[in-house]
Amino acid sequence: MPHVDFRTCPQRYRHWRLDIDGPVATLTMDVDEQGGLEPGYELKLNSYDLGVDIELYDATQRLRFEHPDVKAVVVTSGKDRIFCAGANIRMLAAASHPWKVNFCKFTNETRNGIEDATANSGQTYIAALNGTASGGGYELALACDHIMLIDDRSSTVSLPELPLLGVLPGTGGLTRVTDKRHVRRDLADYFATKAEGIGGRKAVQWKLADEAVPRVRWQEQVSQRAVVAARASTRLPGGVDRPGVALTALRKTRTDTSVTYPHVSAALDRERGIAEITVSGPAASPASIEDPHAVGDAFWTLAVTRELDDLILDLRTNEPEIGTWVLRALGDARRVLDHDNLLLAAMSSDWLANEIVLYLKRTLKRLDVTSRSLIALIEPGSCFAGSLLELALAADRSYMLSGLFADSDAGTAPAAITVGGMNLGPLPMGNGLTRLQTRYLGDDGALAAVEKRAGEPLAAGDAEELGLVTFAPDDIDWDEEVRIAIEERASFSPDALTGLEANYRFAGPETTETKIFGRLTAWQNWIFYRPNASGPDGALRKYGTGQRADFDRKRV
Amino acid sequence: MPHVDFRTCPQRYRHWRLDIDGPVATLTMDVDEQGGLEPGYELKLNSYDLGVDIELYDATQRLRFEHPDVKAVVVTSGKDRIFCAGANIRMLAAASHPWKVNFCKFTNETRNGIEDATANSGQTYIAALNGTASGGGYELALACDHIMLIDDRSSTVSLPELPLLGVLPGTGGLTRVTDKRHVRRDLADYFATKAEGIGGRKAVQWKLADEAVPRVRWQEQVSQRAVVAARASTRLPGGVDRPGVALTALRKTRTDTSVTYPHVSAALDRERGIAEITVSGPAASPASIEDPHAVGDAFWTLAVTRELDDLILDLRTNEPEIGTWVLRALGDARRVLDHDNLLLAAMSSDWLANEIVLYLKRTLKRLDVTSRSLIALIEPGSCFAGSLLELALAADRSYMLSGLFADSDAGTAPAAITVGGMNLGPLPMGNGLTRLQTRYLGDDGALAAVEKRAGEPLAAGDAEELGLVTFAPDDIDWDEEVRIAIEERASFSPDALTGLEANYRFAGPETTETKIFGRLTAWQNWIFYRPNASGPDGALRKYGTGQRADFDRKRV
Repeated sequence: MPHVDFRTCPQRYRHWRLDIDGPVATLTMDVDEQGGLEPGYELKLNSYDLGVDIELYDATQRLRFEHPDVKAVVVTSGKDRIFCAGANIRMLAAASHPWKVNFCKFTNETRNGIEDATANSGQTYIAALNGTASGGGYELALACDHIMLIDDRSSTVSLPELPLLGVLPGTGGLTRVTDKRHVRRDLADYFATKAEGIGGRKAVQWKLADEAVPRVRWQEQVSQRAVVAARASTRLPGGVDRPGVALTALRKTRTDTSVTYPHVSAALDRERGIAEITVSGPAASPASIEDPHAVGDAFWTLAVTRELDDLILDLRTNEPEIGTWVLRALGDARRVLDHDNLLLAAMSSDWLANEIVLYLKRTLKRLDVTSRSLIALIEPGSCFAGSLLELALAADRSYMLSGLFADSDAGTAPAAITVGGMNLGPLPMGNGLTRLQTRYLGDDGALAAVEKRAGEPLAAGDAEELGLVTFAPDDIDWDEEVRIAIEERASFSPDALTGLEANYRFAGPETTETKIFGRLTAWQNWIFYRPNASGPDGALRKYGTGQRADFDRKRV
Repeated sequence: MPHVDFRTCPQRYRHWRLDIDGPVATLTMDVDEQGGLEPGYELKLNSYDLGVDIELYDATQRLRFEHPDVKAVVVTSGKDRIFCAGANIRMLAAASHPWKVNFCKFTNETRNGIEDATANSGQTYIAALNGTASGGGYELALACDHIMLIDDRSSTVSLPELPLLGVLPGTGGLTRVTDKRHVRRDLADYFATKAEGIGGRKAVQWKLADEAVPRVRWQEQVSQRAVVAARASTRLPGGVDRPGVALTALRKTRTDTSVTYPHVSAALDRERGIAEITVSGPAASPASIEDPHAVGDAFWTLAVTRELDDLILDLRTNEPEIGTWVLRALGDARRVLDHDNLLLAAMSSDWLANEIVLYLKRTLKRLDVTSRSLIALIEPGSCFAGSLLELALAADRSYMLSGLFADSDAGTAPAAITVGGMNLGPLPMGNGLTRLQTRYLGDDGALAAVEKRAGEPLAAGDAEELGLVTFAPDDIDWDEEVRIAIEERASFSPDALTGLEANYRFAGPETTETKIFGRLTAWQNWIFYRPNASGPDGALRKYGTGQRADFDRKRV
């Protein structure tokens, strides 16, 4: 597998064009066949690999931050008669199992982000399918708010994965067809077995598309839909006073044993399978909501979120054998809370504050679905407060030092954590609950007790009693307890840990999002791994060879 | 794999004792070490295999039907200091993948049935853990309403699957710990990594058990809890007027190509991978609610449900290569509805009517989680009405003949289906919705339109327009359409079909039950199949050898 860098910018896109026309942006997919991340496959028919999707993710991020005036985004294709053929099959067939799974996870996250932009950011996505959309191509459309399909007697939408490849659609297709678009389940069943797909009026009748538009009216109708969506948008005002904020190139230093950004760093211990991740708090408190507009992406919350986002993607993709991430936050809790409170106060009226909080939410969700054990260490000098406390709440376990280390400097204060407004609503998990609500599922009293202490720095004893941290050993036990927790994690089956964490992290209600990452992903992982798909005679390998796959016919 | 027969009775139990003392029953697990279904393993420490669980299932069914006066069920162990060590590890290590998955599915269904008895049948289950309960042993306790753990400084509850075996708890443990018992997720994480488990006061503090009881007070306290639970029970009156109904031996003829019961039959076509299942409607309408009490398990609804239940289990376990079940219902729709209406009118006051409907509900749920493609064929002479219409609604697709076959006898009426009371509430799926609600998810208008037509026989045109059937071809197209639907199913990847169906069948809300069969099962299947668990150096194989498993450390 190549080392993957997730950083890009429109000037470097090979596969997408981003055009802005007042409140309407058009994202045009025009994949460079020769532009695959790896040699060995051609990205024909607007099919995609991870590299194509990295550009899409970058574009959706820039639309939010750099183009505050954009209120509708049209996703379309630059090819004739084909919108997108989905994930490239030769790439999938040749890819290792971890690569496939990680690829699907990232593409899913981008599509969830598209839905989030539509729902919470006033940027409504419209899929303008000017040709056939198959598999992942149709799933990209499913993530949009409105699906327009050109009615030309040949263009269809389809999910041909099952009949052609012996796998499932990997980016939420099955869930969104029934749960979002409310296609009747028996029709959905038929649809997913019909490789050639469904087009025209029938696609609309079955709710697979919202409208089928003849070619003669296509351009006009797409423009009109975009204008109407933009008009109905609830996007907070940008304009001259509040122009876009450039996402400048991330400053990142990557060595074989470390990843370093201005506010985030990770020390990689390959021997022990551990990444020690440290997030630094802000150097000062902000004065007013003018600050982020003035300093742009140097504003601490935005900067630290971008760095975390990139780090998560980097380690997830490039370091599969580093199975445990140890999380620390160092700095001044007060300043973290000052940043939080500024954003919370402004987010209902200021587009940038809103975008920063939404981005933080998405990045924390990325952590939730990361198949790594997460252990938070809360030590003296730490600043697990508000937004950064979410890191500890996202962790599978947290250890908080009670008192001080024997060798602490004089004047050092014991560790404290502080619950803030960021913990009480604006950063929900995929299940729709906050991390605190998930933590205290079914125990409203415990949640209320924690909410009552919001704003108050809590020492280890209180934090443990309130259930905010898992364990609060003192200096005598700390080293041993923490060492065992980390070392034993590395001794367990990585697969079983992935399954355990995927189940425990999402207690309570399920949503389209948790279904995609829980139910659908788990089945897909299993199917991907079985010889019927990936074996030498499996459907993924046989596709395009003219030979039929040879299936073990036992139903499991 | 041996051919498995799910029929048994208390006289033949080798592993359980069922004692009745007025309103309290005691189910004592006392596994015969030498009584495994297959040679090659000993059922030490009250560990279980499918054979042990078949007896448990039988006991829970007999408690409902044969013992209407029982209101509380104590589940305990006949061994000293051990309640149950869970599923037998050597059995699991040697079992094929389909066997393991099917075994977990059946054991899950039995535990869900225990919760259903507690919630809907007024038979409250109490786990009296008179010794250590590990893995599946603790998961059995988790299915009970109240967990008592003996406090003797050695007895614990544990989920040691991850640290010892590299797999997940397979019968709902992870879901029930957080979602039912509300154990905090970080404590749950620690718990699932601590092979030796947690006992005494701490188990109660962490909500893993409801009470820890010293040995000296054990018997008394268990008796008292049972008496209190029985008193609080909402079980409908049995007594002299309404005594238990014996579940007599099922009349079943099994050949290599057919399974036949009085009301249900299946023709097995191994070549094409198809079972053609025909359910026969009742021979007459019942006169009053005295009928089922008079004829007992010969009452049509109960009889047909028992036969379907046994057939599903038989085909699921013994015929993994028969991947498509074609469902037909033959008979008089009016008589089906008469049976339905009798039960519906009586179920709030008559224990037997209530039990029959609950059993039908559980059996239909078994169909929903069966990893076989289900296709319903609705032809002239069929009786898909009310309870039997649920079979068509449970199917992945249904085909209804429009008009008559060219060679139909004179006087034959075209096929009709009828929505009845049974379709409108009492038979919810695992997601808590009726099959109609699931079908019309997000389209209340369509559901209302169907409800308005309840009681009315609907011809193919109407049924198709209302969305009650998938397709309604006429005689000219029927053979071809149906043949293709069935044949193409057999050409698809069986794994991908399993995943597709597991996703589509459960649109909408998720519950503990759907999480167990969706999320948890899918992860478990994947983990089971990976070399880290089942490979020659995997944890399942290495357990007990003194050697450590050799893991591929890549996190997926």
